[in-house]
Formats: sequence, C-alpha cells, structure tokens
Amino acid sequence: MTPILVGLDIGGTSVKAVAVSPGDPTGPALAEVRHRTEPGESGIRAGITAAVHSLAAEVGPDAEVAGIGVGIPGFVSRGAVSHAVNLGLGAEPLDLLPTLRSLTSGPVGVENDVNTAALGAGGWVARHDPGVDDYALLNIGTGLAAGLVLDGRLRAGATGMAGEIGHLVFDRSGPTCPCGQTGCLELYASGSGMRRTWSGTARQLLDAAAAGDPVAVRTAADLTAGIAHAITLLAYAPDVALILVTGGVVSRNPALRRAVTARLDHDDHTVVGRAVPVGDRVRWLPEDVAVGTRGAALLVAEGVRV
Amino acid sequence: MTPILVGLDIGGTSVKAVAVSPGDPTGPALAEVRHRTEPGESGIRAGITAAVHSLAAEVGPDAEVAGIGVGIPGFVSRGAVSHAVNLGLGAEPLDLLPTLRSLTSGPVGVENDVNTAALGAGGWVARHDPGVDDYALLNIGTGLAAGLVLDGRLRAGATGMAGEIGHLVFDRSGPTCPCGQTGCLELYASGSGMRRTWSGTARQLLDAAAAGDPVAVRTAADLTAGIAHAITLLAYAPDVALILVTGGVVSRNPALRRAVTARLDHDDHTVVGRAVPVGDRVRWLPEDVAVGTRGAALLVAEGVRV
Repeated sequence: MTPILVGLDIGGTSVKAVAVSPGDPTGPALAEVRHRTEPGESGIRAGITAAVHSLAAEVGPDAEVAGIGVGIPGFVSRGAVSHAVNLGLGAEPLDLLPTLRSLTSGPVGVENDVNTAALGAGGWVARHDPGVDDYALLNIGTGLAAGLVLDGRLRAGATGMAGEIGHLVFDRSGPTCPCGQTGCLELYASGSGMRRTWSGTARQLLDAAAAGDPVAVRTAADLTAGIAHAITLLAYAPDVALILVTGGVVSRNPALRRAVTARLDHDDHTVVGRAVPVGDRVRWLPEDVAVGTRGAALLVAEGVRV
Repeated sequence: MTPILVGLDIGGTSVKAVAVSPGDPTGPALAEVRHRTEPGESGIRAGITAAVHSLAAEVGPDAEVAGIGVGIPGFVSRGAVSHAVNLGLGAEPLDLLPTLRSLTSGPVGVENDVNTAALGAGGWVARHDPGVDDYALLNIGTGLAAGLVLDGRLRAGATGMAGEIGHLVFDRSGPTCPCGQTGCLELYASGSGMRRTWSGTARQLLDAAAAGDPVAVRTAADLTAGIAHAITLLAYAPDVALILVTGGVVSRNPALRRAVTARLDHDDHTVVGRAVPVGDRVRWLPEDVAVGTRGAALLVAEGVRV
C-alpha cells in the first residue's frame, strides 16, 4: 500500500489536486491532476470524487487515500460551503463531509480557499524568511480576502472567516456596496472595485495613469490606497510578522507594487508609522508558487480537523 | 515562605498592584495596594519598587516575590516602554526589566495595558460564556485600543501591537489626525475624537442628541458608527468569538450602548452581515471587574515571558 494525502483546490475554473506522502507532506508531489469545474451541488460532489480517483490512479494501483483536505471559495463552516457564487452555491450550505468520507476512512477537512492558500505558503515563507511562522496571505483578485497563519497555526477564526476584510468600511463617505453597506474596502482594493470606473486590466490602469489619464489617475489612487490599507490592517489588527500579497490584480504589475510600496513608505513616516512600520513586512508572493492544493493537504496533515 | 505573584497596572493616575498565589493565580487576592503615579523614567521605576515592597509587606513578613507582571500604556517591546504620553515617556524606550529583576529572581513580564486587561478578563468570560476562550477586549477611553486572547492565549502580535486599531483609516475623506494620517478610527470611536466637536461627557452627548441638538446628533452618530466599526473589525479580521467592550466612554452610558447595538443589528441584516453576524458576539464588560492587575499577574503565571 502507498498511503497518500490528497489536497483539493476547487476554483471557479478548475479543480486542482495534489497527492503527498503523509510522512513528508511538504515534500515532493506524488501526483497532480487538474479537472474542469462543474458548478452546482452535484457537479462539485462529482468533481471531488473524480479528482480523487484519477489522482489515486496516477499514484498507482496500491494507492490508499489516507486523508483529504479541501480548499473552496465562500463561507465554510464545519465542512459545509455556502455563498460561493463562482461555483453556483448560494445561501444553502453544501455539506462536503459525506462525499469526502465516502472516499477515505482517514481525516477530512474543508476550509476557505484563502485559508488553505495561507497554510500552503508556509514553505515559501520558510525558504525566504527563515524562522518566521507568523503571516497573512492577502489575495487581491476579483475580490479581496486574507488568510492568517499565527505562530505557525492556521487561524480560521471563531466563525471560520478570519481575514475576511473586504467588507470592512474604508470610506464611510464612499459609494454604496452591493452588500448594502457604504464604502467597503473591496470597492477599492480589488478587481471588481477597479472595474467600477475602469474597463481594462490593472496593468493597463497603471499605464494610463502614468500617461496622465484623469480617470485612471483617480482609479489607480483608489486601488493603491485600498491595497495599502488592507496591508496596514493586517499589520495592526492581528499584527502579523509578514504580509504576503498575491492575486491577479498585483501579479505582473510592478507599477502597482511600486505605488503601494511608496504609499506604505509615506505612512511609515507618520507618528504612528514610525513606532510600528508596515512597509518592511510586505512580501510579493510569486504567482507560480503552488499554495492552494499544498495547503489543502496540510489541513489533514497537520492535525486541523473540521 | 509565602510565594506571591505580583500584577502591576501602571496608569496615568495610579499604580495598582495585586498579589496572588502562584498555585491559584485566578483565585482570591492575597493583597492589593494602590499608589499615586509619578511620571517620568525615575518616577515609574521608583513607583514599581514601592508598590512591590508595600504589597509584600501587606502579605506578611514571610512573603517572597516569585514573579512580577506589568501592564503599562504605550508601545511595549521586550520589556521596554515608549510612547506613553500620560506617563511622561516619549520615543526613547524605558527598559523596565532591570528594575523588575532587582525585585525578584522569578519570571518577569511587561505588556501593553490593554493586552494585560484582555488576559485578566478571562475569568469574567469563563463565568459568563463557559467554554469560550477566544475574545477581544475593546477599550473606548480617551483613545481606542483592543487586546486579543485567541484560543486561550494572549496574542501580543509580531510587534507587540496586535489590536492597536485606532489609527486604521475609517473615513479616507475625513479630517487629518494628529498622527498625520486622514480619518483614523480614533477620531470617531474615542473620547478624544468626540471632543473634537463636543465639550461635555459621552452621557451628556447622548442626552443632547436625544433632545435634538444638531451638533450632538452628528457627533453621536460618528461615535456610534466608529465604535460599531471597531467591533466589526475585530469580528472580521481576527474573527474572535466575543468582543468585550469597556472604557469610560461606554460605561454607565446605556443610550450609547443601545445606539451601537442598533447599528450592529442594522449591519447584521446586510448580505455580508447575514452570513457572519456580529451583534450577538458583543459583551459590555462591567467596569467594576478588576482586569488590569489580574491580567498582569497572569503574564508570569501562564508562562508568557518577555
């Protein structure tokens, strides 16, 4: 028998899966597969089963699934997922535990995908900042969310939503958010926020702002200030040692990174900033670091259970 | 010999001290004393020494100081304190460890006073919400700050400032803060913030707002929204199970508490609020619960070391 731990990263486009050894869960992948996502309850359930079966087949005929961890967008509580729009899941929770338990007699775990990505980034942090095991992973994509690893352990939080900072108010004089509140941070520090006033990509936005386009200048300033605020919030409230920033909006966008860095540097010269600087805690996580599936596998390797 | 653990709470007005038994640190106080605070470096050092000596004398001639924990305002790092304006301490750190080590051969610890208060509130939480060991203590006084106890352990944070949320931006279109930033939360959710536009007490503010005074109505709305935001931030970012609210602005101010509760209830009916409600996680901590000295003693009783 070859026991394997399975990590599944279920996204709007694809279901990615990795198999690792229970004795070396951060070591080399034994196998990796990727399937297209079928949205909806039965599609998600069938997708999990198919991914685990093809992963086990890749490993070989003597593969035995010793545990399965899942990272999935939306609101996750006790193995059930809701409010994952890209997966066709609404307010009604979809309980993934029966599906997972039909595939293994070992431990199973389900977490929000930003939380599993945060766990999965631990290897990168250990290589680049040896000795540090306290950080947030901040994802700036269509939305905005963070996962927290505090003192080496995933902080899912009392409701499983630790790091869900997108709907904290950033500008109480700002516009109404689709959520019903006013001036939420996600209206500024995210791709969907940017698209309120800009129809291109984030790179095109920074180029147009550099060329003096007044709408681009304003939108880029909002985006920059919002991302800097998200970073500062994580540096002050949970007070993590590092903030890893990733996601489609900031990846391959050196001009935006420079703007955010300059903004944080400015704030670090205020009275409060001098006492508790933030800028030197930022790390731009390379997009080719596979964190989602790896973190999902660590959910069941490191003793986190639903 | 009667071994005692000493907890010191150093405030702008008085130095409070408690002696507890190392074998029962949350049990009955063996002695309590209170001295007037003498600000400045030598005043603080002498005040610590005097408080420990008179506490030991209260316990009896065979008292032996087995450990000392200190809660103190300002920025605390490795036993040194800075930026504690009420104590006459500026940017230059005052190292308290030599003074503490001259008074005991046992463990010593220094933490920000809101952090020690958070630790000290654990007994109250255990009595009122049995089984819960995950919470924030939010203090709304002249300033605004929170201390975090996550999964039963004090979360001081990577820089010792976890929960220092007063200078996070709440209204980026707001006024300039003395810190140099714009629209900081402390401009709204604190006594000093209230006094920008109101010269009386917080209770008088709510009375005048109820009577229709337009300045009071506006100031009370700012104060209410700011406190509700601070609570929501703690419910979302570290995602604590409970938020204990205390401090001079909210104590004996039922009208303000009702206004904050109504605001949270409103937000709990938005899309995001329905998924992750906040209002039912709030507890108004009675002001007669002694948390400062008790939490300071727990710093050295529970193995936290500087």
